[in-house]
Amino acid sequence: MAPQLDGYFKQVDTLSDHFIERLRKAVAIPSISADEERRPDVVRMGQFLADELTALGAEVEQRPLGKQPGKEHLELPPVVVARYGNDKKKRTILVYGHYDVQPAGKEDGWATEPFELTVDSKGRMYGRGSTDDKGPVLGWLNAIEAHQKAGVDFPVNLLMCFEGMEEYGSEGLDDFINAEAKKYFVDADAVCISDNYWLGTEKPCLTYGLRGCSYYSVEISGPGQDLHSGVFGGTAQEPMTDLMRVLASLVDTDGKIQIPGLAELVAPLTDDEKSLYGDIAFTMDNLYESLGSQTSIYPDKEKTLMARWRYPSLSVHGVEGAFSQPGAKTVIPAKVIGKFSIRTVPNMEPEDVDKLVYKYVGEQFKKLNSKNKMTCTLQHSGKWWVASPKHWNFTAAAKATERVWGVKPDLTREGGSIPVTLTFEQATGKNVLLLPMGSSTDAAHSINEKLDKKNYIEGIKLLGAYLHYVAEEPMTN
Amino acid sequence: MAPQLDGYFKQVDTLSDHFIERLRKAVAIPSISADEERRPDVVRMGQFLADELTALGAEVEQRPLGKQPGKEHLELPPVVVARYGNDKKKRTILVYGHYDVQPAGKEDGWATEPFELTVDSKGRMYGRGSTDDKGPVLGWLNAIEAHQKAGVDFPVNLLMCFEGMEEYGSEGLDDFINAEAKKYFVDADAVCISDNYWLGTEKPCLTYGLRGCSYYSVEISGPGQDLHSGVFGGTAQEPMTDLMRVLASLVDTDGKIQIPGLAELVAPLTDDEKSLYGDIAFTMDNLYESLGSQTSIYPDKEKTLMARWRYPSLSVHGVEGAFSQPGAKTVIPAKVIGKFSIRTVPNMEPEDVDKLVYKYVGEQFKKLNSKNKMTCTLQHSGKWWVASPKHWNFTAAAKATERVWGVKPDLTREGGSIPVTLTFEQATGKNVLLLPMGSSTDAAHSINEKLDKKNYIEGIKLLGAYLHYVAEEPMTN
Repeated sequence: MAPQLDGYFKQVDTLSDHFIERLRKAVAIPSISADEERRPDVVRMGQFLADELTALGAEVEQRPLGKQPGKEHLELPPVVVARYGNDKKKRTILVYGHYDVQPAGKEDGWATEPFELTVDSKGRMYGRGSTDDKGPVLGWLNAIEAHQKAGVDFPVNLLMCFEGMEEYGSEGLDDFINAEAKKYFVDADAVCISDNYWLGTEKPCLTYGLRGCSYYSVEISGPGQDLHSGVFGGTAQEPMTDLMRVLASLVDTDGKIQIPGLAELVAPLTDDEKSLYGDIAFTMDNLYESLGSQTSIYPDKEKTLMARWRYPSLSVHGVEGAFSQPGAKTVIPAKVIGKFSIRTVPNMEPEDVDKLVYKYVGEQFKKLNSKNKMTCTLQHSGKWWVASPKHWNFTAAAKATERVWGVKPDLTREGGSIPVTLTFEQATGKNVLLLPMGSSTDAAHSINEKLDKKNYIEGIKLLGAYLHYVAEEPMTN
Repeated sequence: MAPQLDGYFKQVDTLSDHFIERLRKAVAIPSISADEERRPDVVRMGQFLADELTALGAEVEQRPLGKQPGKEHLELPPVVVARYGNDKKKRTILVYGHYDVQPAGKEDGWATEPFELTVDSKGRMYGRGSTDDKGPVLGWLNAIEAHQKAGVDFPVNLLMCFEGMEEYGSEGLDDFINAEAKKYFVDADAVCISDNYWLGTEKPCLTYGLRGCSYYSVEISGPGQDLHSGVFGGTAQEPMTDLMRVLASLVDTDGKIQIPGLAELVAPLTDDEKSLYGDIAFTMDNLYESLGSQTSIYPDKEKTLMARWRYPSLSVHGVEGAFSQPGAKTVIPAKVIGKFSIRTVPNMEPEDVDKLVYKYVGEQFKKLNSKNKMTCTLQHSGKWWVASPKHWNFTAAAKATERVWGVKPDLTREGGSIPVTLTFEQATGKNVLLLPMGSSTDAAHSINEKLDKKNYIEGIKLLGAYLHYVAEEPMTN
């Protein structure tokens, strides 16, 4: 099966320096979407992708998304969409990635210049965007080029969708995907997103689930203005006192959410599913290393993975309106806003979660018998996503992984959210696969982000191999 | 008694425009001690005082306090000490004030230029420092001048101590007072500080007590760095969860401190003391007005005044290290520091309070059975102060008040702290009187700070009259 792959693989190895140069050029463009002043660089990065794709023979369009909401003087960077191949006999695969990056500066503690790709003796390629997500995005371009130079027929029609605002909430993208689902993306047979990471550093994985996130504010107010605690301490009911009590009632040290009814929304654990966790390449030491401590809730890997992937969690993130600086300030704040979020899982409907949260928080506040005012509101919510890992899109990716890496990939879920995943699934009605290139130590979003040379080069092979297998795989759901 | 006062009062009225001009000049110097760039203005303000005092015939010294701790490039502004009169047959009164001010800017919402004294049609004199504390400081100078011009013998030897760092923690002052207690201040018979306010707007008061303040941090840490709540929510014990529970355990909505043993440290309420509160000129409407709401703990004035003056209170001020901005951020903070303070009253020894706090917070954290680490530390403490209002220093001030304002002053305490009060009492061993000039609506530390012309001019009379009565008052303790 897919015998042409040997020539393709060889060509990827031959072109590896060239591919690293391409990544170097991309990393050199500081396309920070959160930084208004870098917006021209984000646009330049989109142009770079468009030029490279055009040079490879793809049909490219840069689609405008209009003004940035809340910053009407600022144009959103375009979505770069491209089509490579238009053969009705071939399957069409839609791939997504993003060409913007997180902020980065030497002053944050980077050991190297963040926008200069720096390869060390162990083949670690340091640079902002190397693994998130310029490496994977260029992976698709590199796969096209290696096919061309190896003289191997490209096995599918490739539709590409690369956005420039992912690190700033994918402003405008949902509307675009929904609008294009039955137009530009209409003939997509399956979707593949390479924008996440292996669970560890040794074993590749395919990802079929993500938790959702519902983010809440609890605002408590009373006095007309901040008060001097000397003058008013002991005579006024303090919003902060009430807020501490409400926030303390949400979850306990072992992560047990105290909101009645929430656990009942969670899909029951079947024996089948339970048996999957033991085989996942993950150890408690992996967890301790990434935590930087041993302050885990569970002592064993199975419970830890389940807690991360298939059970909800609640985190209190902070308080707005109260003293938050170092030192001492004795003010009684007049209005404080607590922030917390719930990571949601199947089958928690966000609306049901909202209702239970409002009811519980309301009851907790009422118990205090306070004269202050409390309002609890949803700031935003994104739903969880779970795909069928038995779908041909996944079985093809599993075969490609085994071919390239010599090992069956773990089937994993993730605790975080990649909202665009669900958008693609819902808009196109097609199976979505998360096919990571980088590993757990790549430090996306942190200082010293890197992509291992091996993950990049073998990853290019993997993306190409996936396209071959997905072209041939018998249809299953 | 004190018949010379009529001529003095008349002269004060005659000079009132001149005294307002003197205040205008002082307000025009933006002597903001918290603002490094304004340090030359603070020094200039000290020089202005020194020059005025010298012109009035006082012996003036500007005493250096050395470098500012933590800002070694910055010289502290000098303490301006002065002596007016050196007659062994007269009593010597030591007065304190400060010539620095809080920051202020039009952009904060001032209706007028904060450093231009602006008098409205109701005689309200707006300007930063007008009431806190340039008006009262100049009050002493004006009293000297009016005596001279009225040809009335100055009844006491006046020692003056005016500092330039009060609004920034009185850096260096305690050491100075302790060092000079048996030197420059050695012949002081009593101390008078005019740096607080009437309880309301109509009735003058003498203040004989202040609460202390012990300020604590509770630091809880676990992970080696901040965590992504998607990835780690539900698998790691979160410091913020623990902190909310600890902070929630400290005090309830009605201000009841939950720390066992603390209430037992408080001096019992005697029937005698209890009977005093009913007569104080204060209403619940005064409280509601200053709160800007009706979110009071007690429905009646007596309990409210007792809660402010003679019972401890605990306020939670904020959390350092957690998300505190508007919007939504899903980080799990690795280390969070809760801040709270306890206002202390007789007979709470700060060390006893510390012990009870550490024990209770330790127990509360232990109950959580958390793997995170917790430390509770005292950030700073200042002890409460209560003087005897039956001391001749107070009876003299009461007589002066009745002479000037035609009403017996309320004997009040305050909920806040003025640490220098206790320092003077302990260093000199003499009775300290707080004799306010301004009223409760003067908005010290806020925008639109003002001093009513009436409070200024009658206040100058009051300071002078006080010196006459205190010169004659039979000794009582």
